[in-house]
This record gives sequence, structure tokens and C-alpha cells, in this order.
Amino acid sequence: MHLSLFFLNGAPCINPSLAASSHFTTSALSKPGNTKANLFGFSVKLTNVSNLPGLNTMGLTMARLDLDPNGLVPLHSHPRASEVTICIKGTLLVGFVNTSNYLFTQLLRPGESFVFPKGLIHFLYNMESVGPAVAVSGLSSQNPGTQVASLAAFTSKPPIPDEVLKRSFQISNQDVARIRRNLG
Amino acid sequence: MHLSLFFLNGAPCINPSLAASSHFTTSALSKPGNTKANLFGFSVKLTNVSNLPGLNTMGLTMARLDLDPNGLVPLHSHPRASEVTICIKGTLLVGFVNTSNYLFTQLLRPGESFVFPKGLIHFLYNMESVGPAVAVSGLSSQNPGTQVASLAAFTSKPPIPDEVLKRSFQISNQDVARIRRNLG
Amino acid sequence: MHLSLFFLNGAPCINPSLAASSHFTTSALSKPGNTKANLFGFSVKLTNVSNLPGLNTMGLTMARLDLDPNGLVPLHSHPRASEVTICIKGTLLVGFVNTSNYLFTQLLRPGESFVFPKGLIHFLYNMESVGPAVAVSGLSSQNPGTQVASLAAFTSKPPIPDEVLKRSFQISNQDVARIRRNLG
Amino acid sequence: MHLSLFFLNGAPCINPSLAASSHFTTSALSKPGNTKANLFGFSVKLTNVSNLPGLNTMGLTMARLDLDPNGLVPLHSHPRASEVTICIKGTLLVGFVNTSNYLFTQLLRPGESFVFPKGLIHFLYNMESVGPAVAVSGLSSQNPGTQVASLAAFTSKPPIPDEVLKRSFQISNQDVARIRRNLG
Amino acid sequence: MHLSLFFLNGAPCINPSLAASSHFTTSALSKPGNTKANLFGFSVKLTNVSNLPGLNTMGLTMARLDLDPNGLVPLHSHPRASEVTICIKGTLLVGFVNTSNYLFTQLLRPGESFVFPKGLIHFLYNMESVGPAVAVSGLSSQNPGTQVASLAAFTSKPPIPDEVLKRSFQISNQDVARIRRNLG
Amino acid sequence: MHLSLFFLNGAPCINPSLAASSHFTTSALSKPGNTKANLFGFSVKLTNVSNLPGLNTMGLTMARLDLDPNGLVPLHSHPRASEVTICIKGTLLVGFVNTSNYLFTQLLRPGESFVFPKGLIHFLYNMESVGPAVAVSGLSSQNPGTQVASLAAFTSKPPIPDEVLKRSFQISNQDVARIRRNLG
Repeated sequence: MHLSLFFLNGAPCINPSLAASSHFTTSALSKPGNTKANLFGFSVKLTNVSNLPGLNTMGLTMARLDLDPNGLVPLHSHPRASEVTICIKGTLLVGFVNTSNYLFTQLLRPGESFVFPKGLIHFLYNMESVGPAVAVSGLSSQNPGTQVASLAAFTSKPPIPDEVLKRSFQISNQDVARIRRNLG
Repeated sequence: MHLSLFFLNGAPCINPSLAASSHFTTSALSKPGNTKANLFGFSVKLTNVSNLPGLNTMGLTMARLDLDPNGLVPLHSHPRASEVTICIKGTLLVGFVNTSNYLFTQLLRPGESFVFPKGLIHFLYNMESVGPAVAVSGLSSQNPGTQVASLAAFTSKPPIPDEVLKRSFQISNQDVARIRRNLG
Repeated sequence: MHLSLFFLNGAPCINPSLAASSHFTTSALSKPGNTKANLFGFSVKLTNVSNLPGLNTMGLTMARLDLDPNGLVPLHSHPRASEVTICIKGTLLVGFVNTSNYLFTQLLRPGESFVFPKGLIHFLYNMESVGPAVAVSGLSSQNPGTQVASLAAFTSKPPIPDEVLKRSFQISNQDVARIRRNLG
Repeated sequence: MHLSLFFLNGAPCINPSLAASSHFTTSALSKPGNTKANLFGFSVKLTNVSNLPGLNTMGLTMARLDLDPNGLVPLHSHPRASEVTICIKGTLLVGFVNTSNYLFTQLLRPGESFVFPKGLIHFLYNMESVGPAVAVSGLSSQNPGTQVASLAAFTSKPPIPDEVLKRSFQISNQDVARIRRNLG
Repeated sequence: MHLSLFFLNGAPCINPSLAASSHFTTSALSKPGNTKANLFGFSVKLTNVSNLPGLNTMGLTMARLDLDPNGLVPLHSHPRASEVTICIKGTLLVGFVNTSNYLFTQLLRPGESFVFPKGLIHFLYNMESVGPAVAVSGLSSQNPGTQVASLAAFTSKPPIPDEVLKRSFQISNQDVARIRRNLG
Repeated sequence: MHLSLFFLNGAPCINPSLAASSHFTTSALSKPGNTKANLFGFSVKLTNVSNLPGLNTMGLTMARLDLDPNGLVPLHSHPRASEVTICIKGTLLVGFVNTSNYLFTQLLRPGESFVFPKGLIHFLYNMESVGPAVAVSGLSSQNPGTQVASLAAFTSKPPIPDEVLKRSFQISNQDVARIRRNLG
């Protein structure tokens, strides 16, 4: 069996006798990511077991979110983590939808926090049309995962069959083609 | 403090001295639900701690899915459970999208099974235009929860702001209004 | 250290870049097993990480049980899983004994379900003397394990000392020898 | 809803402001139980949330086992805990059967320990025909539960149907009646 | 049984039909605490199920730490959580000691993060003699708990016997009395 | 990637087909350790996956503690386990400090037990000036870990900065140097 054929669940631990202080520190969140690399005007930086090996088995992740003026972290969910976000700069409109289809939403100013329960669709929107917004989040897993609802639905590889999308969103073939093109 | 003001996490256990065989059995899955009660032509019946009190703390749920000819269980996710479905009748096209935006999809015939990992968007579609389809699923939580992506996005109460939907799906105000109307 | 000397706990994950739809589907439950291969007239087929690699870390197993007319799944327990069974065909008498030595029992007809709590001795018996019975179960672990009480007691390798069996069941040396022979 | 109608899962915590040192100590294991109260010549004393309230949510139980000369803790399993036992006095023959029906067995002298994995059938037998034996065990749950295989099979209330027992153990109606009588 | 006699484990959930957006937001971390209320020149503010009811069952806590110039969060541990801290302002010397008695230590500048594994003694020290320091932490439990090593040892109520302290720290009776007085 | 570069989380399982009874037994706790190897007059012996491979994944550890006359297990905590200790011989003064800084303490005579909750500082002290004391403990993890508070604070490698110790314990530079020397 070739080691390259499989992934260990989670990640291997460092041999304790080789562990160093550098394994427990990271500057991964020091700088914003590129908010121009997507359609929505946001970037996310995360601690993980690559940039912070000492995080392994610790059960949490820290994240830094940067949003352009009127930037949006689009509707998404984390399949393996709850999240608490703290607004550091700017004015953030945030919200999540629960499994009874109620929206819980709030306007966050610097220092205010909000909870996004595990696996539920949520968003963060920078209400300010001039300045950027920054938030710091904690997530309750070392591997939270992220799924953007619109991208999963309309831009997966291979694509979800048109019929499934038309019926799920009650839209036309043309709508499906257009949304795919716009998001692609 | 009034008991009515709070919910116990999970559910209270039955006093062991009062437990009866009936607490461990249910006919909740014996009959199909009403597939005409929604836009998509499907119904789901679930075991839960109300119809099957002995399920409490057992860590799983069983479900029965019925789909009309060409019926669809639209794009949805379970925030607290993985699912394995077995096709009992009909021909089911099933699939899920992972966090790298790959679609894993399969055509299931009776007796064949498929895995939907926890928290990821998935669908089941009855390929047959004549007969109904039936599937039985196991889910890895006594309270899996379900969130239909399109309904959470477009029909929550109160609604998600138009701007968030327009930007998330790259659609127009008119599109938002129309999809809301169609799904509402 | 040779890799062949140890087993990874659970199972290694597939390298995500090599994962395919086929890893998430199985026809392992499509056909009944051989009910003539044992003394009791039943067969069990299970999903597991060999026939369904995508099940790894998902926390559940699906099973198909087939029972001959008057076939029996003899007294057994699953050390690592609770089970919910759905009767698909036939008339099943099912039951489990709790740790206060109460029997909870029920007659299941198609569509009816029953809970077997984790680690407790239970049975399923096809009451019909003509037709076969079929059930589908969900189990709350990807590796539930099964221990048949009579086989563990009387046919282990090496055997449990006679004295332990005589005293546990309050039977004679001859009884022990006879039961061993009958079950062996 | 009457409080008396339900049990809280586990046990309620003591109001922290009322917690006292006495809640964290017990003499429950100070003295042997009555080894004459059963057919097998053994007694077990356990810590639990009644005699040791501070054990609540701690995730383990301690037990004291006393065995008469040639006393036996008959074949039994703990549905919710693994166990490690330490022989304090006497000579104990111990063993468990795994899910592949292999017996793992050992002769323990004072100071020696043995592992019984969760949910598997095991026994402890005092090999000495003169003196008593004593063991101390740790169990990996605050509520391990115990099921004696022979008692669950032959003395449950109500009884398991004869047919199920005859077939499970490959014995006659008369055998079933006799074992029930002897164990009852 | 009086409800007032016990605490529910964790906290009761809000009746879902009464849940409001305000239950998922808090300004508890908006302002620094009082760094003059202790000997060390620091304050900690935490989210918890009182100031943020929606945090219940979410499995994490967020914290804000403020340190005066040369302020110290003294040697302490969290019995139920790992922690990742992000330096927001100032220059923080941080470190933890593992169970092999190695110190892992680092100088953090704004944007840099550090991991403190669950249950291990750690500290944060503001190296700047002029300006204050601020950090934001995530902790992997909704109820992490905090124990300051020196306060637990020397200022508990009732006090730990002198003999235990003298021997643990290899100090004199006078030392014990003096440290108690200084920390008290 | 060289296998020697990493540690598997926990420990690899033995190939089930190679498992032997000897993997489930140990005499590691049969004899006291060397109580003269430290300043405090105690020794601890633990089961672990090296001396008891069958303990792997079982979720508990057993320990034997031996204390010289007036021997002390100094203030320490287990970052990953709760502990229940049973006094086997001697008179033990035991105690732990909770996160509200209350000391819970008790005098244990043979047969009496005490709970030390996970991650909290605790001690055991042999009150007898003549005879040794012995205790047996169960711990709720296969890898509980131990951190002695005074040794972690004053003898780590590299050392914790003097300033942090002076401030944490409100002692002088000379005190720090002296305690380091005494404990080193």
C-alpha cells in the first residue's frame, strides 16, 4: 500500500520530541486576503494544520474576514462547525436561517458578536459603501469546511443536472444557464 | 422559572420504570406522506423522539422518502447528520457537492445505496416519469435537521435582504422577486 | 515498523483528489445473503468501509436482514451501536432485554420500526412459516460489531472453560458438551 | 408536565454554590457486598451519581468485586463502558470474547490488570477454592450498565419466547424450562 | 424536588418558537474590562450562555483580553478548552508548558496567533511598558473554565494545608504566609 | 514522507488477526515505583498503550499511587481526564480546587474514594508519619497527561521568564531563583 494513496483522518501529530514553539504560532491572519479574487468582494484567511500544526486535535479554527465596501460573504454554511464572529471594523449586517426557515439577523458594530449555528446557511454584508470591514471568527472544529450555496448549486464540477436546479429554484432553463455563466 | 419557558437539550428520558415496548416501536414510516403538499413532488417521514420515544439518546434517525414520477427532493442539507439512503423502488438520480465544489452523483436502482456526508448540499430525483420512487435512509443523529437551500435563501421569514440574494446568486431584483413568488 | 503490522483506527481516508462517485455508492444490500450458511435461517448484509469507502467517518451503517420462514436472528448485541430496524416484508417478532432484565418486545408488520439500544441483547424472529421476511436497519456507528450470545459463550476459540459455562447457565458438563456440539 | 413523568438524561448537576466536599467522596466501595445473594458467589459495588454525586459528567465509574472461593462473575457485558480490572487479592481467571469469536483469557495474580473492551461478553472466576478474591475496576462511563447473558436470555420479565431460546442455544423445550428454573 | 436544588448540565435551550435574533448577538466584548480589579493588570471578557444565549450547545467561546502596559495574564489553565489567541494590539509574550515540562513561547505582534492546548498552564504578558495590549481568543468549549495556578494554590477557600504548599513549592511556612498575604 | 517524522494520533491498533491475550494484560501496577526519585516521596505507575496495548481506544487509564510516610503527590492536574481514586492503605488527605477557587477536601481511609474533576489542581497527602499509603485510581482517558503546577511554573525548559513568575506568585527575584533551585 502506498502512503500516497490515502489521507490520514485529520492530520498526523508531530513527534512530540520535535515539536517547537513555531508549530504553535502563525501569522496567517496578519494580513487581509485578496478581496478582488471573487465576485463578492471578500476574503477569508483561516488557521489550519498546515499553517499552524499545533492546532491539530485542538477542536477549533480562527478566521479573519475582510470585506470591501459593500462586500458580501455570500450565503454559505460550514458542515462541521458553529461560528462566533466579532466585528472588528465597519458595520456588518449578518444573519442565518434556521431549519424552521426563520432568519435571525443583526447589525454588528465594532466589538459586537454573533453566533452562526453549525451547518446553517448564513451571510455577512458590509453595509458601508466607503470603508472596508474586518471580522474575526472562531469556529468549533479544526476543519470546519465551507460551502457557498450558490456556487455549490450552479458551478459544481460536473454540473448538477438542469432539471434539478430548475425545480429546486423554480426557474427556467435560461435562468439556470445565465446564473451559471454569471457565477462561473 | 416556568418549565414552559425552556426546552431541555435533546429530550427528557422516560422514567425507566414506566418504559413500555410501545415506546420503542412506531408505524410512522408505514405510509407515504403527502407528495402534493409541496412544489417538488416528494414527502419525507422521519422517526423522532415524539413518534418513537425510545430513540432518545440513540444517535440515529430513520427516514422514508416518497417521490412522485419525476419528483425531486430539492437541494438540501442536514446540519447535524450524515445520511445513507437505500433505493427501495424506482430509479433515483442522487448527488452531493463537497466543499471543493465537486459533484458526486449516481443512478440508484432498487437495493443500491448512497452516502450523503454531514452538512453538504444534496438531492434525490426520481428519473421515472411513470412510477413513484421510494427510499429508506439512516441519518447519524436523533435530530438531523433539514435546510432546503432555495427555500432558506428565498422564503425565510423575515426575508434575507434583496442585496444579499442578488449578490449571492448574481441575479437581478426582478429575479429575486420572481423566485420568491414562485417558491413562496 | 512495517505498515502491515498495524491497523489504523477506523480506516484511512481516501485522498480527496482521488475520491470518485463510486466511493459513495454500493450494491452490497441489493441481494439477500445466504440464509442456509448458519443454523438459524438468516443472513445479514452490511455497508462498511470496504464496500462503501465514502462511509468512513460518517458514523452510521445500513444493514439488510433476510430471514427464512421461521428464521431467527439469534440473541445478539452490537457493542458499538444502537439500531433502528424497519420491517420491509413479513411479520417479525422482535425484542431486547434492558439492564434491569425487562424484555421489550413487539410484532412488526411491513413499515413498522423498532429500536434496539446500544449493547443490549436482542432478537428478530420471522413468525411466518411460509414466506421470508426482510428488514432494513440503520446502526449508529460505522463499525457496530456483532456478538451472538450463544456462539460467544459456547463456540469461542479457544473455548471458555466448562466451569464458567456450567455456572453461568446452571447446566451440567453434559449440557455444555451437547450445546457446544450443536452450535459448533 | 409533571416532573415525575420524566428522567433527566444522566443526572442534574448540583447547584455549584451548594456543592460540598461530601459530594465528591464515598465509602460505597469500603466493604464487600453480599456474595450469597446470587447463585454465583460474587458481589459488585459501584460508584454512581447517587452515592457519589460529584461523579456526574466525569465519564467514569469505579467498582469493587468480591468473589467467594471458586466464585464467578458470570458471562456479562457493559453496554456503555470498557473496563480495566486490577486483581487485588486471590487468583482470577478472566476473559472476554471478541466479535470474531476469539477468547482472550488470562490468569491474574494480585497487582495484575486486564482490559474488557466495551460491550463484549466477559467473566471473572476465582480459581482458589479456599480464599476469597477481590478486584478493583475502572469503567469508562458514569453509567456503564450490566447485562448478564444467561439471566437476560432465560430470566427476563416477560420471558423471551421459548422458540427464540431453543433456536439461539440449540436446546430443547425441556432444557429451556430447566435452565429458567435453575437461574430464576 | 425543587427546581432550585439543581442545575441543568450546560444550560436549558430556549423554546425555539421564542428564539429571537437578540439571543444570538452580544456586545459583551465591545469594551475592555477593569484591568485595575486585580494585581496583574489585565481583564478578560467572555461570551457565555448568559450574555449570548444562542451560544448554548455551540461548543465554543470567544474572549477579549486587555492588558495594561506590562500587564500579565498570570499562569492559568482552562480545564475544558483549548485556546487560540490573536494579538490585536501591542506586543505579547505568550507561552505554555506541556506535560513533559517544555515551555513553548513566542512574541506576538498584531495579527499573529498562538495555540494553548487544553488544560495546560499558560500566560500572556504585555511587553510594552507604555501602551495597552488587546487580544481576541477562541476557546473550544462553551464553558471553558479558568484556574489561575497561584490563586488556586495560595488563596482557595478554605486554604490548602500549609504542609501541602510548602512541599509542593519547596518553600517555608513564612513563604506560604507571605505569598498568601500578597495574593489574597 | 518518512514514518518516523510523525506520530499517529493516539496509537495504531494492532492487526486484529495478531491480537493476543497478552495485549490485554499487564503487571505494570504490580509493584510500587521509586518514591525516592523525587522530592515529594511518591510514585505513580500507569497503564498505557505501551505496557497494555489493548487499552487503545478504550477511553480509560488505571493508576497505582504509592506514598512514603508523609509523602505528597504535589499540586497537579490532568489536562485530559477526570480521576476517581480509592484509598487502599493508609490515611490520605486529598483535595481539589474548583474554578471558583473553592477547595473540596477529605480524609480518606482504606476503601474510601474521591473524585478529582478534569483539569483541576489537586493533591494527595499521606497523613501517616510511619507507614506508606497506597491508592488506585481510574482516569477517564487513555492518555490523561499530568502537569505538576510548581514544576511547570519553576522548572520548565526553557524557563518561564522571571517577570511572569514574580508577578504570578507576587514574589521577588530571589524567591524565584530559590524556588527554582529547590525544585530543580
